[in-house]
Amino acid sequence: MALDTEIFRVRTGAEPAVVDIGYRLATFVRGRRDGLLSVFVPHSTAGLAIMEVGSGSDQDLLGYLRDGMSPDRYRWQQRHGPPGHGADHIIPAFISPRLVIPVQDGSLTLGSWQSVVLVDTNIDNPVRNVRLSFVAA
Amino acid sequence: MALDTEIFRVRTGAEPAVVDIGYRLATFVRGRRDGLLSVFVPHSTAGLAIMEVGSGSDQDLLGYLRDGMSPDRYRWQQRHGPPGHGADHIIPAFISPRLVIPVQDGSLTLGSWQSVVLVDTNIDNPVRNVRLSFVAA
Amino acid sequence: MALDTEIFRVRTGAEPAVVDIGYRLATFVRGRRDGLLSVFVPHSTAGLAIMEVGSGSDQDLLGYLRDGMSPDRYRWQQRHGPPGHGADHIIPAFISPRLVIPVQDGSLTLGSWQSVVLVDTNIDNPVRNVRLSFVAA
Repeated sequence: MALDTEIFRVRTGAEPAVVDIGYRLATFVRGRRDGLLSVFVPHSTAGLAIMEVGSGSDQDLLGYLRDGMSPDRYRWQQRHGPPGHGADHIIPAFISPRLVIPVQDGSLTLGSWQSVVLVDTNIDNPVRNVRLSFVAA
Repeated sequence: MALDTEIFRVRTGAEPAVVDIGYRLATFVRGRRDGLLSVFVPHSTAGLAIMEVGSGSDQDLLGYLRDGMSPDRYRWQQRHGPPGHGADHIIPAFISPRLVIPVQDGSLTLGSWQSVVLVDTNIDNPVRNVRLSFVAA
Repeated sequence: MALDTEIFRVRTGAEPAVVDIGYRLATFVRGRRDGLLSVFVPHSTAGLAIMEVGSGSDQDLLGYLRDGMSPDRYRWQQRHGPPGHGADHIIPAFISPRLVIPVQDGSLTLGSWQSVVLVDTNIDNPVRNVRLSFVAA
């Protein structure tokens, strides 16, 4: 059977960004049976997280990533991009580019304060792809 | 088909805690066919990890989270809770609130030294929900 | 129905290592229908990541893990192994030992620069097991 799949694009811009993509996910699963939603980002300098947004935590995360992985502190071996691009490449090892969320009766089972966000610290790739796949129970 | 689901509560108390929830997971999958178990925590200040417990690593993890994300070091923008609550909100970006484990013949395929734990640094939410969902192969 | 499963061994050696295991995954899913591939490592001091390799980022990741979790900086409670072994045990809380990747028409849906790697900082376990499980859509 074919995997029910949709790929959409997200504009993350030319600054490090945390972008809420929950609306697209909710629209994709609406009207479906129960199952699992896979969210996958086919890029090596972006990740996915489930976190609260709107109270400053999205900016706190970007600040922590910037300070914790400072281009001044490490001598990154990966040097293909602008200063600090080396850090962009190891962030997905921690904030991974894939996640699975249960779907029940056409809705994501997220908590009240949880949003699904795309985390993109790479300032050279302003547009990203996200792949949604649904597997019915 | 309906997703086979169970929600249970875990007491994490008023101190940062790493709580082994493996017993509940093992009970939930016992007697089932092969498939995938999804574990999901619908909270924005808690996460899930697979790690060794009982030899000090659980305390090492809490110590590392406390020292690595010190409220004294960062000026968190999220300030709704007690001091350091801003850090609680970015931890789930790294220790994510969801995971999937293969189930074979009614047993989780964990290694000998692996436990599934709930990581909760938030001292203001002493009780947490965990959602288990099973998808048969 | 039985979960379609294969376990293979990876030599990670006696130094911290990031090992590309993508070839084994691609071979396992070749010729299959659409579905989800679960990759699971049954060890408490190893993890899985999706990242670029071949441009230095794999060494950058190992350097960051070593410097960020220095055995000199923390007094790890877990002390069963060589110096720094305590850090090996908390790394899987951040670089988790399991992931799920969508499979479409017998291929992993990885991006051009993404590789699936086994991250093993533990110098005392030179050989590791990896469990692959496929669930058809």
